[in-house]
Order: sequence, then structure tokens, then C-alpha cells
Amino acid sequence: MVVTKQEDEIQHIAEGTIVTPKGFKAAGVHAGLRYTKKDLGVIVCDVPASCAAVYTQSHFQAAPLKVTQQSIAVEQKLQAVVVNSACANACTGEQGLKDAYEMRNLCAEQLGLQPHLVAVASTGVIGEFLPMDKIRAGIKQLRPSNLADDAIAFQTAILTTDTVMKKACYQTQIDGKVVTIGGAAKGSGMIHPNMATMLAFITTDANISSDSLQAALRSITDVSFNQITVDGETSTNDMVVVMASGLAENNELTPNHPEWHKFYEALKKTCEDLAKQIAKDGEGATKLIEVRVTGAANDEEAKQVAKKIVGSNLVKTAVYGADANWGRIIGAIGHSDATVDPNNVDVSIGEIVMLKASQPQAFSEEEATAYLQNEEIVIEVNLHVGEGRGTAWGCDLTYDYVKINASYRT
Amino acid sequence: MVVTKQEDEIQHIAEGTIVTPKGFKAAGVHAGLRYTKKDLGVIVCDVPASCAAVYTQSHFQAAPLKVTQQSIAVEQKLQAVVVNSACANACTGEQGLKDAYEMRNLCAEQLGLQPHLVAVASTGVIGEFLPMDKIRAGIKQLRPSNLADDAIAFQTAILTTDTVMKKACYQTQIDGKVVTIGGAAKGSGMIHPNMATMLAFITTDANISSDSLQAALRSITDVSFNQITVDGETSTNDMVVVMASGLAENNELTPNHPEWHKFYEALKKTCEDLAKQIAKDGEGATKLIEVRVTGAANDEEAKQVAKKIVGSNLVKTAVYGADANWGRIIGAIGHSDATVDPNNVDVSIGEIVMLKASQPQAFSEEEATAYLQNEEIVIEVNLHVGEGRGTAWGCDLTYDYVKINASYRT
Repeated sequence: MVVTKQEDEIQHIAEGTIVTPKGFKAAGVHAGLRYTKKDLGVIVCDVPASCAAVYTQSHFQAAPLKVTQQSIAVEQKLQAVVVNSACANACTGEQGLKDAYEMRNLCAEQLGLQPHLVAVASTGVIGEFLPMDKIRAGIKQLRPSNLADDAIAFQTAILTTDTVMKKACYQTQIDGKVVTIGGAAKGSGMIHPNMATMLAFITTDANISSDSLQAALRSITDVSFNQITVDGETSTNDMVVVMASGLAENNELTPNHPEWHKFYEALKKTCEDLAKQIAKDGEGATKLIEVRVTGAANDEEAKQVAKKIVGSNLVKTAVYGADANWGRIIGAIGHSDATVDPNNVDVSIGEIVMLKASQPQAFSEEEATAYLQNEEIVIEVNLHVGEGRGTAWGCDLTYDYVKINASYRT
Repeated sequence: MVVTKQEDEIQHIAEGTIVTPKGFKAAGVHAGLRYTKKDLGVIVCDVPASCAAVYTQSHFQAAPLKVTQQSIAVEQKLQAVVVNSACANACTGEQGLKDAYEMRNLCAEQLGLQPHLVAVASTGVIGEFLPMDKIRAGIKQLRPSNLADDAIAFQTAILTTDTVMKKACYQTQIDGKVVTIGGAAKGSGMIHPNMATMLAFITTDANISSDSLQAALRSITDVSFNQITVDGETSTNDMVVVMASGLAENNELTPNHPEWHKFYEALKKTCEDLAKQIAKDGEGATKLIEVRVTGAANDEEAKQVAKKIVGSNLVKTAVYGADANWGRIIGAIGHSDATVDPNNVDVSIGEIVMLKASQPQAFSEEEATAYLQNEEIVIEVNLHVGEGRGTAWGCDLTYDYVKINASYRT
């Protein structure tokens, strides 16, 4: 018999969703905010869940984010999150805040929960009020279950011009108990073209305090969601929410738990997986670009340089055109605030070395062009000034990006 | 008879060029770096000129910039600047530096000047060596004159995929003498798509020390050239050089001269004029976008917010599509590091107020769409937190931008 150390590992659950962790149900309905697609969804937990959330850094935080922060402030627990697409409820003043509270309270009533255990999220056009009659009617239709179909209904309801659903599920064992983490996300796309919004909702049955969960989420967000870029814009509505039901019955997780790293890695894999799905499905995108920077002065600078390269319009168009134009990568590095020795930088595209110690290397253009036809492109940079490492993800810049964003809102 | 105060004013000289100021000659030839277009040019002064220069902030400063800095360091004077297009001579190591020195020395020999009075500039593809046989033969063809045709030949020789020449000329009177400033520039465009390069060459017959000229240029660059963006990239080869012959015979200009402000304003108008021409002719652009920010905490933050808005891909595509999508302007402001009161921001597009004290205003979509069909679009933002003001210029993001930059280098 072959002994594997499988129980120590983190497993990807291909068919898993946000209702795979114990204690979670979901629903998604068509409330009429969009013409035909589902546009209102909810995730609900059987028990008040430990929770963590991170929010957009925009000066203009939308109303639902303010309501969510107030909910969580009461006892650091959440039992449900209700989400609509089509309207961001951002830049909507007092009325917008009132509407977000009403949306929260209606959801609490429908599910028989205390209002402060409900979070609210919105995505869509900025500066328009929520059509509250449709929201009211829609919430009354929400009947969450733990069936995969209802998880899919939720995953669909939160999308705007996303072309595919984004979900991820990972499992690990802690204290001999199976701990599952599931996630759903939406990326950059809009019915009425406007600010792209990134939303992600993560469920887990891990037994973990809200404080420990928040610490893990904040640190992981910095190397996953915060390391993707589609167009360099930060939305007014970005939010990531994690709920932990505790029903896996492991001993309570804290950073001192001997198996903390397994939970942390599984949560990180979930976030990274969703982040990459969002980057790959960026507006008009045909390719996922992954930029790995090593040898930076520190991790912070490595992440910054990676994000600069993957966010460069010139790099993005070159990848779209399958042009191994490494000069543009140098341009982006040169433009960054990181510590750089201009005489000692290496650049590779895929396995092909283009620049070694800042000296151009001979390479086959045919091979490079062939590699750049792939759907996932890896760019590697070594700055040779320290031990810092960081990765960022983005997508190519295409005619369709311009088309999607130049077309009229109505 | 109508008395005008014309003699106090700064006049735009529509037909003026870099050879309009007294003491300057120019030339431009086809050296064979490009297939058929002119690709090598020179500006020369009858006397060693006071000079000032600003350079790219990229970590990877190209070889010609290093040579120019060494030339100027000797006695803060220049008598000529030689420029080639098609090859940036950037990331070319020791060989590149050797080539740039040879280019400088050949030009000095051809014009009978001391080598340290010659500046060198290049624009084009990164990571390729200068074809020195062509450079050598080309320099021998340079026969500068003060004819307008030769100024045009120079203006043409420095272009890459620019669709129009960029030039400007302004006059003022100082100490009763006519002082003229002329300028030529190239914008974002490449034969082999690569980093956009911005180069500008300014001549004047003002009598001014290099120190005073450098102080003026540095301060003016911050509100002109540094306030334009086509695609958020900083080239390895950006450079602005000013030469002042002194042949206007005014008393030496310093910031204490009673008419300093007139020279300063004329130089500022020249730089701003060239900067706007570069923005308007950005790759694939169909429109010039001017963003004016007032009410910022200080001028620095106003400039930063203006540049953020004009650099936003979502704002740029909305302008291309004539979509009055002010939510994207809010998105860009929200994303900036400037001091912002999210409850008190005004946004106008043209004369049309879209947001007042952060409250959406009713406006005619037809009027807004009609305004956005213009070739020059003005966006105004008042942050209501202070007295800071700043303006930035850019262009729309179009299918042609993607087309130009996705196409293969060779």
C-alpha cells in the first residue's frame, strides 16, 4: 500500500462552491434590475459566523460598504450577505444609505435574522438610486438552499459583464477534521459600463475567531486580490467578505494553532484562485498575464514592480499582439519607485531569456511569438538587489476593452 | 487710434520655428535608419549658448542622455544638439555609450565645434545598437541653415509614428528688445512599437544664464511636459533641452530682472503648447482631453488628481465613445492620494455640471454627447478643500491605440 501524505496537503475541490463548507446556503434570483439575468443573491449561514472583510480604499466608499461595516461592528459576526448587481448604490448620498439599510433589514426579515448579522454589497452603475420596489419584491423570492444549483444561481446573480462565473473551493484537515473553504467572486464588467467592481464572498466551516480571520484575510488580500489589475482603477464598491461557521469542529484556529499554516494556505489558495479568475476575465481580455518578480529589495517592492509591469498598457497590448517586446517591460520597471540596478536586471518571457544582467540576449522570435499565443503568459524579472519576491496578475488590452468601455451607458 | 498694450504681451508667432530666434540654424536628413523618412537632425547655434535640460526619471536612462549630461557638465553651455529617430540607444551597455560619444564627436567635427558643446538625443526601439555606418554617413550630410525649410526638415527627422510635426514660437519684449522662443518636439509613436519617447528642443535668443534658464525650465516642466500622459509610461529617453543664444541683446535675465515674468511666461507658453500638441497626437488619439482641478489642498495635489483623471483608461474610453460617464471621473479621484471630502466634490464636462457637492445633477444626455464629439474636451473638478489648482492633458483611448501597439515590431 502506498502511503501518501495527502492528509497534510491542501486539496482543490473542483466541484466545490460557497455551499460546500458546512452550514452555508445560497440563492440567486431575477429581481428585474437587469433585463433577463439574475441580479440578486444571498449567502446565509445556519449560525452566526465569525467574519472578516476588507473594503475599497477609494475616497468614495459606496453606501452598502458603510452598512456592512456597521453590521460587523456590533458583534464581529455575520450570518448573511445580500448582493445586487446592475446598480452600485455609490455617490447616492443620504438616500443611498437609507436604501442600503432597508435592503439589509428586508433580508434579515426574510431570513429570520437580526439585521446587524447581515452584510450588503452592490455592483453596477455609479450615481443612480437602487430601484427599491424591485429590491423589495426580489428579496421576498430568496429561498436559500445548500444545493449546488443555488450556489450557481448566487454566482450568476453577482456578475455584470463578466463572461464566466468565478468560484473556488479548497479543503484541508485540521485537528483531524475536514475544513473546507469556498468562494465566489465577480470581476470587471458592467451592464452599464462604469467602474469595474470586484466583489468576493468566501465561506468556510473552520472554527476560527473573527480577529484571527481578519488578520489572515488582510495579509492574504495583499498578495492576491490587491495584486490583480485590469485597468488600474479602484472601484467605489470593492469588498471581500469571509464567513466562518465553525461547523468543521476543529479546535479554534489562531496563529498559534499548530496547523494554522494549513488554514492560512487554503484561504490563500482560494483568494489567489479567485483573483486569477478575475484577472483572466478582465474586460475584453484574451490572456492571463502573470508577472513574477524576484531579487527585489523586499517583498513590497517586488509586488509593486510586478503590478507596474502587469498594469502597463504597452505590455498588455504587446501580449495581445504576441510581440516579445521586452523593452516595454524595462520601461515599466524603470518607471517604478523600487530599488533597481539598471546594469543588472534579468527578464524572461516564459522560458525564453530576453535580458541577462541588462544585456539583450539573442532569442528566436518564432519561439517567443509561439509562446505568446498561449492563454496564460508568465513574465519573470530578477532585480538582483535583494531577496524580495512578489507576483501580480492581469490581462491583455484588446480592441474589445475599448469597445466595451466606449459604448454608451444606456 | 486704438492704443493697445501689445508691447507688454506675449505673442504667438504662428509661422515661427526653432530657427526664428536669432543665432540658430537647423537641418534634417535621411540617413537610412528609417525606410524613406528623414531620421537625423541637428540644431546649431552661432555662439556657445546658455542651456538647460531635464531628463527622464526612468532607472534606465539611455546612453545619449548620459552623454548630454556630461557635455553640459563641462561649462554649462551647448552649441548644438544632434538627434536620431528609429533607435533609442537604450539598454545597450558600454557599446551604446561608445556609440553615443562617437555620434557627438562626429557632429562636433562636421560643424567645427568642441565636442563638449554638443548634446545627443535618440528615440526609437529599445535594446538595439545604433547602425553607426548610417549615422556616420548621415552626419556628413548635415548642412544647417536658418531657412524655415531646414527647421521643418529637423522637425520631421525627430518624429517616429507621430502623425503631425510639433512646433511652437512665442515672442515678448524685454529691455525694449524682441526676445523670441522657438520649440520643436516629438510625441508618442514608434517605428517599431516600443516605449513612447518625448523629446523637445527649445531655442531662444534671450540673454540669460544657464542657472536661471535651468530654474525656469525645471519649474515649467512640472506644469507642462510632466502634466501630459498618453499611456502612463515613462520612456528611457525623455529629454527637454533649451539653448539660449543671448543675441536678442536684452540685459541678462535672472529671476530678479523686472521683466523676468515675461520671459518665464513666454517659455511656459512654448512648453505648454508643445505638451498639448504631444498629448493631442498620442497614439491612436482622436481628441485632446484637458482636466482642470481647483479647490485642492495644494497645487501638487491638484496636478496629481488632474493627471490621474486624464490617465484613466475608463475616462479615456468614455471620451472616445462620447459617453458622459462621470462615475469614472469619481472613480479616478477616489483612487488618488489627494485630500478629498467625498461629500463635497463638483464635476463638470464642458459647461455641463454633472455633480455638485457630490450630488448627481440632472443634465441633458443629448447635450453632453454633442459636447463630447468635439476635438478638445475640458473636464473641470472642484475638490472644495483648499486653493490648489492644476491642469493635465491627455487623449482618448481608441481601437487604433491597441492596433498600433499590438502589431509586431518588425
